[in-house]
Amino acid sequence: MTLTIGVDVGGTKVAAGVVDERGKIIESLRRRTPAASPAQTEQAIADVVSELLSRHQATAVGIGAAGFVSHTRDSVEFAPNLAWRREPLLAKVRQHVSIPVIMENDANASAWAELRYGAARGHDDVVLITVGTGIGGAIIIGGVLQRGRWGMAGEPGHYRVVPDGRLCGCGNRGCWEQYASGNALVAEAREFACRTASGAARLIQLGGGTPEGIGGPAITQAAREGDPGALQCFATVGLWLGQGLADLAAILDPGCFVIGGGVSEAGDLLLGPAREAFSHALVGGRYRPHAEIRLAELGPEAGLVGAADLARLAYPG
Amino acid sequence: MTLTIGVDVGGTKVAAGVVDERGKIIESLRRRTPAASPAQTEQAIADVVSELLSRHQATAVGIGAAGFVSHTRDSVEFAPNLAWRREPLLAKVRQHVSIPVIMENDANASAWAELRYGAARGHDDVVLITVGTGIGGAIIIGGVLQRGRWGMAGEPGHYRVVPDGRLCGCGNRGCWEQYASGNALVAEAREFACRTASGAARLIQLGGGTPEGIGGPAITQAAREGDPGALQCFATVGLWLGQGLADLAAILDPGCFVIGGGVSEAGDLLLGPAREAFSHALVGGRYRPHAEIRLAELGPEAGLVGAADLARLAYPG
Repeated sequence: MTLTIGVDVGGTKVAAGVVDERGKIIESLRRRTPAASPAQTEQAIADVVSELLSRHQATAVGIGAAGFVSHTRDSVEFAPNLAWRREPLLAKVRQHVSIPVIMENDANASAWAELRYGAARGHDDVVLITVGTGIGGAIIIGGVLQRGRWGMAGEPGHYRVVPDGRLCGCGNRGCWEQYASGNALVAEAREFACRTASGAARLIQLGGGTPEGIGGPAITQAAREGDPGALQCFATVGLWLGQGLADLAAILDPGCFVIGGGVSEAGDLLLGPAREAFSHALVGGRYRPHAEIRLAELGPEAGLVGAADLARLAYPG
Repeated sequence: MTLTIGVDVGGTKVAAGVVDERGKIIESLRRRTPAASPAQTEQAIADVVSELLSRHQATAVGIGAAGFVSHTRDSVEFAPNLAWRREPLLAKVRQHVSIPVIMENDANASAWAELRYGAARGHDDVVLITVGTGIGGAIIIGGVLQRGRWGMAGEPGHYRVVPDGRLCGCGNRGCWEQYASGNALVAEAREFACRTASGAARLIQLGGGTPEGIGGPAITQAAREGDPGALQCFATVGLWLGQGLADLAAILDPGCFVIGGGVSEAGDLLLGPAREAFSHALVGGRYRPHAEIRLAELGPEAGLVGAADLARLAYPG
């Protein structure tokens, strides 16, 4: 059975793994992303690939990159949450790696994995939204990844949901990912804790005693315990998520949304309010079928599994 | 040379015409849409077709309908600007017409015409936006009209651009078409005239003496004369239009936008501010090619030409 390596490079983590022909992960590794330095990010990618290659015979590498990958899929033109600006990432990684390497947008890679092995099996028209540090997106129509004229389709995290809204890493204001991402969830909880320390006692406790210590896992845990403040944070972010899905349905009318990314691990805490908001906001909702909103099935490893699968398709070896 | 008939049914007008194999209109007719009554709208469609058939030998009829056309393309499920709700329009029109009839969303029909005979010739990835009473949209990817899983893709007029914003005909608030359509332009000018009668003297004059008399053509005429208030109305609506195009580019990354519909007849009065806003708002704009924003070339007859062409393709006779 041939193996390929997938590397998912996000705003905070580099996740790499060896994947078999059925999408099963044989071994995986995780590193923090040195996001501020393109050179260090590239070195981190090369290091995890080398380490995996020292133990496994893989035939190709696929990189899923959290950025705007060019149409030719050799460079990252822009990354809201990393320092890449017109970065010829593919060539740089190839200098360090002896087997073929391909690159794809990270959300596209995740969507591909969900279509092949996960929540979107059996669907042809799918929009994947990854709710992590920011929001990633991928569009599949007729079973084909849609990359747009210049490779940059599927970035709904940066459509504007609030005029003159919150400042975004992309330089604009009011982008969806400032309202419906993991960062937004954490910002909501910290603001709540700063304003209402008594109401946020459990959140602050789980954050190690300070509002600034509150992270995503703490919010999820508190919400699972039934903490009203934490539940409200998920309700707020879920509302923005569902509204955005309704906007995307007005434009694309997919059969299925798949919600992945770190925050989606909270499951119905996020998807409950999102589904309700979607159903309420969908234009003409009483007169049309509603797209399913499904939880991604492959978890945080979807990106690396998809990248590995795309590498296998590009280099069937 | 075989002829087909196209009928474009909008929120205010029914436009019908006999079209030849090169997209040329042999004869056309216009009627007001009895929008409040589905039965009267259907009768109006049947009447114009009958009238054209009495003078021309056509082989098929294509209807472009301003509403959410079902996947099977036989009914209009919902129309924000007409009284259609789950209306089996195709069957009803067929009762009155002796030759084959097909139906398509009106903006899809216009986009198809622009792709075949107009501003989008040579492009494969195109988003058409029709700025009329409301906003229509159509998405072409790889030269193929994208209708979505249930036929309702390409309705960006109803994605939300302002939370708790202006009430829309669809029942929601803050829809794009409440900010970047002909209705929005007229509302802007009337509001200006109500607030500042002296500054809006020319607009009011062209409106027949009252703010309520100001219509789209009056605003265009005043703006062409250099009237500052009228120019500001176009600047405001153009800004919303350009921002929306940037949002769509974040999601779809097309090679070309084509702007049609009645308001687009104002040309650069609308497109100047729209292009500037697009360029400013496009995410990662310094690091990616910018889609062209082109004026539709086929004018208000694009919808009927496209509908006729789609009828010809469906029934090559």
